[in-house]
Amino acid sequence: MTGYKQIDTEKARNFCETLFTAYGFKPEESKIITDVLLRADLYGIESHGVQRLVRYNDEICSGQVEIGAKTEIVHETPISACIDANKVMGQLAASEAMKLAVEKAKKSGCGMITVRNSNHYGIAGYYAEMASAEDLIGICMTNTEAICVPTFGSEAMTGTNAIALSMPADPIAFSYDAATTVVPRGKLEVYRKNSQPLPDLWAMDKNGKPCTDAAEVIDNIIAKAGGGIAPLGGVGVLHGGHKGYGLSVIVDLFSAVISGGLTSNHVNRKQDHTGICHYFMAIDYGIFGDKTSIKANMSKFLQEIRESKKAEGHDRVYTHGEMEAELMAERKNTHIPVNEKTLNEMMKIAVSLKLPESSLL
Amino acid sequence: MTGYKQIDTEKARNFCETLFTAYGFKPEESKIITDVLLRADLYGIESHGVQRLVRYNDEICSGQVEIGAKTEIVHETPISACIDANKVMGQLAASEAMKLAVEKAKKSGCGMITVRNSNHYGIAGYYAEMASAEDLIGICMTNTEAICVPTFGSEAMTGTNAIALSMPADPIAFSYDAATTVVPRGKLEVYRKNSQPLPDLWAMDKNGKPCTDAAEVIDNIIAKAGGGIAPLGGVGVLHGGHKGYGLSVIVDLFSAVISGGLTSNHVNRKQDHTGICHYFMAIDYGIFGDKTSIKANMSKFLQEIRESKKAEGHDRVYTHGEMEAELMAERKNTHIPVNEKTLNEMMKIAVSLKLPESSLL
Repeated sequence: MTGYKQIDTEKARNFCETLFTAYGFKPEESKIITDVLLRADLYGIESHGVQRLVRYNDEICSGQVEIGAKTEIVHETPISACIDANKVMGQLAASEAMKLAVEKAKKSGCGMITVRNSNHYGIAGYYAEMASAEDLIGICMTNTEAICVPTFGSEAMTGTNAIALSMPADPIAFSYDAATTVVPRGKLEVYRKNSQPLPDLWAMDKNGKPCTDAAEVIDNIIAKAGGGIAPLGGVGVLHGGHKGYGLSVIVDLFSAVISGGLTSNHVNRKQDHTGICHYFMAIDYGIFGDKTSIKANMSKFLQEIRESKKAEGHDRVYTHGEMEAELMAERKNTHIPVNEKTLNEMMKIAVSLKLPESSLL
Repeated sequence: MTGYKQIDTEKARNFCETLFTAYGFKPEESKIITDVLLRADLYGIESHGVQRLVRYNDEICSGQVEIGAKTEIVHETPISACIDANKVMGQLAASEAMKLAVEKAKKSGCGMITVRNSNHYGIAGYYAEMASAEDLIGICMTNTEAICVPTFGSEAMTGTNAIALSMPADPIAFSYDAATTVVPRGKLEVYRKNSQPLPDLWAMDKNGKPCTDAAEVIDNIIAKAGGGIAPLGGVGVLHGGHKGYGLSVIVDLFSAVISGGLTSNHVNRKQDHTGICHYFMAIDYGIFGDKTSIKANMSKFLQEIRESKKAEGHDRVYTHGEMEAELMAERKNTHIPVNEKTLNEMMKIAVSLKLPESSLL
């Protein structure tokens, strides 16, 4: 990969932990935040890995993230809770909420936790997998700043609004993690960098018309001038854009509406408050029958899919989570590729925190 | 509409109830089945309305549907159940399961019911709305015969696998109901009828290549010769087809895997057994906080979406369920349009059951 350096995975981990501790996070908090970030790089989801450090730096410095704040349970039943995250780092609110969901699922069969006033939490899949690692079904959703334009609209009203679900299986869990937009914003950035026209289903201009000019769409998003990214299914209804739009509303329902927090169209409108909301669910699938059989059913179904006939030019049908797990096995004890621009940003942050640059390499 | 006749809604209802009772269903069972069918026609979802009578007739005559069979709860907790439908009519298994989910949600906060060995049940949205009519969140999923080809594959492994969700709101509930395929099979039939080429994201030939020949795709589906319909997001990964594929697997997980029933790729492989599986969930959203506030949050969010800026050439941004509710208000006390071919089929069935043809018109 040109423009990338291979960074020792453990060194990257130490660097991030040192960095977050320098901001004022407790060492155990720094470990959690770092683990979520690094997992993204290990999975090959560069957009949500150390590349995000510069954004987190901004959010911490602007007061959107409040170091030392405490989350608060504002409503609770044996199977549910509503948490006010009080602006803590998203990864901390999220891992705490999923732990609570897991605990409730183990005691009562399921746990559903809605969280308001949080912040970006990295990859949704991380938390869903916290539950599947405990032999439960894990579900996780989050809203974000509005970027997605509803069908027949011209104004972004919902976020990238990812849905993640992880279910145990052998030899590998099913782990789904996807935005309800047709693509994430990062994809548009890549097209702009390469001066490539966007596929015409991906984005709308400020009048809600399909737009293939990545720069125009991104500039409009930043200026909140109208337009944005299409929901999964694309612009219009021909390819089912109304379905992706509905799924994005469902994410806002579980994360923001039932928590009493900000829906995507109100997120990130203040300098010192993003107001991002999440949802976590853990289900002990033993409430439906024998766990060994159910897990075996899932393993069999996934295996049948993997063994199904391939399309011409393809030699594998992947089940969700497979690609990421294989990449992680490769990278875990060796290196992660880090973009040189990202490395420079990391160094600058280290300097601003008076950390030795040498702590990274 | 050419080729359509306007049929008095109440007469159509009476005709269907008489028909199902003639098969041997109890009057109260005939009422339920008919109500689900008619709701589809009232909502403008012709594919799932009286148009399906000929298919139900086949399923009843072939023994796939067993009249007089009883469902059985094979596993139960205060928040869950696994039901073996024992081949009863899908609408009966489904309404019974959602009633149980609603009952559990009212007592314990949520109810999750998985159902195996059922049959086609009509529109998923009907059952989700049974819960929202009780001031609960309703969720419903079903698998079907495999018709959807996974990303990089060439063999259908999942069904149209619809997901429905309904959440109370004023002045109108949010009611989402959509297949996880890019389009339902019925859309392909329309393109074939009109000799129109399919959009190139919709379907694959038997080698897994994009295919725009509707007749070829349908013939291959019927012959189980390979190929089929693309998941939501289309063929390949460019527009997110892997996301729709994952959602379809999730539907099979909740309906077939945890119930110990048949996953889509095994559904409808026998003359006398479809093996279709469903999933129902009701959530009392009061487990997260004050219900009045939460419902008001939902109403406000939906209203903001409806009031958001429109795309050029459009004067409304719809929220899910709005179009259907408006159409139903129009048709409920008047007429539903029925295709003349469908009317002929209905008459033939009436004759085969020795019912007076005049019972319809």
